Amino acid sequence: GGGEVGKEIECGNILSEFKTTKVLSDSAREKNIFIHGKLADQDAVIILEKTPIREDTLAELFTGSTLKLEMKNDIYSTYRLQAPPQLNEIKTTVVCPATEKHIKKYQRQESFLVEETGADYQSITLPYIQKQSFSVQWVYNILEKKAEADRIVFEDPDPTVGFLLLPDFKWDQKQIDDLYLIAITLQRGIRSLRDLTQEHLPLLQNIFQKGKEAILQRYQLPASKLRVYLHYQPSYYHLHVHFTKLGYEAPGCGVERAHLLADVIQNLQSDPEYYKTRTLYFPLRVDDGLLSKYKEAGRL
Amino acid sequence: GGGEVGKEIECGNILSEFKTTKVLSDSAREKNIFIHGKLADQDAVIILEKTPIREDTLAELFTGSTLKLEMKNDIYSTYRLQAPPQLNEIKTTVVCPATEKHIKKYQRQESFLVEETGADYQSITLPYIQKQSFSVQWVYNILEKKAEADRIVFEDPDPTVGFLLLPDFKWDQKQIDDLYLIAITLQRGIRSLRDLTQEHLPLLQNIFQKGKEAILQRYQLPASKLRVYLHYQPSYYHLHVHFTKLGYEAPGCGVERAHLLADVIQNLQSDPEYYKTRTLYFPLRVDDGLLSKYKEAGRL
Repeated sequence: GGGEVGKEIECGNILSEFKTTKVLSDSAREKNIFIHGKLADQDAVIILEKTPIREDTLAELFTGSTLKLEMKNDIYSTYRLQAPPQLNEIKTTVVCPATEKHIKKYQRQESFLVEETGADYQSITLPYIQKQSFSVQWVYNILEKKAEADRIVFEDPDPTVGFLLLPDFKWDQKQIDDLYLIAITLQRGIRSLRDLTQEHLPLLQNIFQKGKEAILQRYQLPASKLRVYLHYQPSYYHLHVHFTKLGYEAPGCGVERAHLLADVIQNLQSDPEYYKTRTLYFPLRVDDGLLSKYKEAGRL
Repeated sequence: GGGEVGKEIECGNILSEFKTTKVLSDSAREKNIFIHGKLADQDAVIILEKTPIREDTLAELFTGSTLKLEMKNDIYSTYRLQAPPQLNEIKTTVVCPATEKHIKKYQRQESFLVEETGADYQSITLPYIQKQSFSVQWVYNILEKKAEADRIVFEDPDPTVGFLLLPDFKWDQKQIDDLYLIAITLQRGIRSLRDLTQEHLPLLQNIFQKGKEAILQRYQLPASKLRVYLHYQPSYYHLHVHFTKLGYEAPGCGVERAHLLADVIQNLQSDPEYYKTRTLYFPLRVDDGLLSKYKEAGRL
């Protein structure tokens, strides 16, 4: 009723006050844009991304839109189609107040591939992570059901092998094509792949098995249509696993950053020290503080 | 004047008459969709693709749109933004009448992730590869300089560890942004990752080292800007290595198909049987004969 209308009006006001400082990055391929600016004197980052075209709205789109002819040549013609706004929404994410770190995160940057030995991790990467003490309060809010509780798709409450499964922010959940869920471990203190040993096999196997089952049950998507992996480096240092639909080229699913959970499990089974001793490769952006550390160490 | 208005009305009519037969393919990432259907009893293909977000329309977009709140957690909130239609157009291409070839061209093939144990390789995959006897004559033509000799970027003629480095067909060599080269081993008979053992380490290390050096010399691109990997399954069964620019999301660089050469070398160094014994995961398209073999074996 009135409350909802009020909320919508209030939301509308939020963006009309926004003053753009700088476009941080954009992608013509993905139809998104990352903007730094001010919202009522606070630094903010706004992310706009056009939404995928949904098959179930095509009929309405075809009848309810207007077409402007652009070009006609033989059997080919092109048009600009103007659709009813509710059939053509733009997914909008607001980070406010945004810190310097957020702004840097979304700034388009060149990347370099870093080679990190087990010793490099101990002497360069780990001290850097510890000194930064990146906040994972928002993860704890989720684990404690203080936020996003209504978004939980599956929960295993076991304190050792348990996890929550939620849609990733990037997924609008309107279609299965770009399905993207994250499993977040209840256990705290496992920072990344580098911390994993054989003692974590039950946790990893539990996430792999129950995550796949939950996705089959909720979205009717079988394991053979899933890409299940970890990132190294992760974007936050609380262990989490990515579930994306095979065929959807999710950002960060490239071989230089993603590690299949099935491979991680096999590697730990055959060598408990695999992720302590291996040289791992990952891309770092020019403005990443960790890259400076590798440069200082003469490693790049 | 009147003519233009008339044209727009006529155009609007075109799509409202369209009857969808089938969605041929779509991309949630690129926000496009390819649809087969009928336009006035003729076969037609319609391609819709959302347009990139333009920096010069942002101010108008922010003031002229309505926002619907979806989620709020700490400093993060997400909304659905409904924009004025003229600021959020959809590029529309019509092919009419469309032939069978057009329809096939735009038809997406679904993929399934296959789990191949070492035993599966011996009992299912290897017999299939051998029976198909996929021709690699075109590779031999390159190695014997009967074809593409003028495209060779670097050559190491050693019969055991030697290789040729050439631009991949997909790369037009017009810009470095999407650099893509292939190193093809002179040694014949190494079908894929599955054939590799410790005896191939000198070959792999030679390709890795000299390939990177040749690319630095020819394109001024250092190793820290390269993604160097093998495919499994490969598209042809003669050992070759992919060199692509980091940051360019080359087709097939996803974690489900690509294996970093640096990881392959490390894995063979610590376990000579690594690629004989491991379970490997890879996507196969619905129309791939190998997928049928896995289905017959009850593995999917």
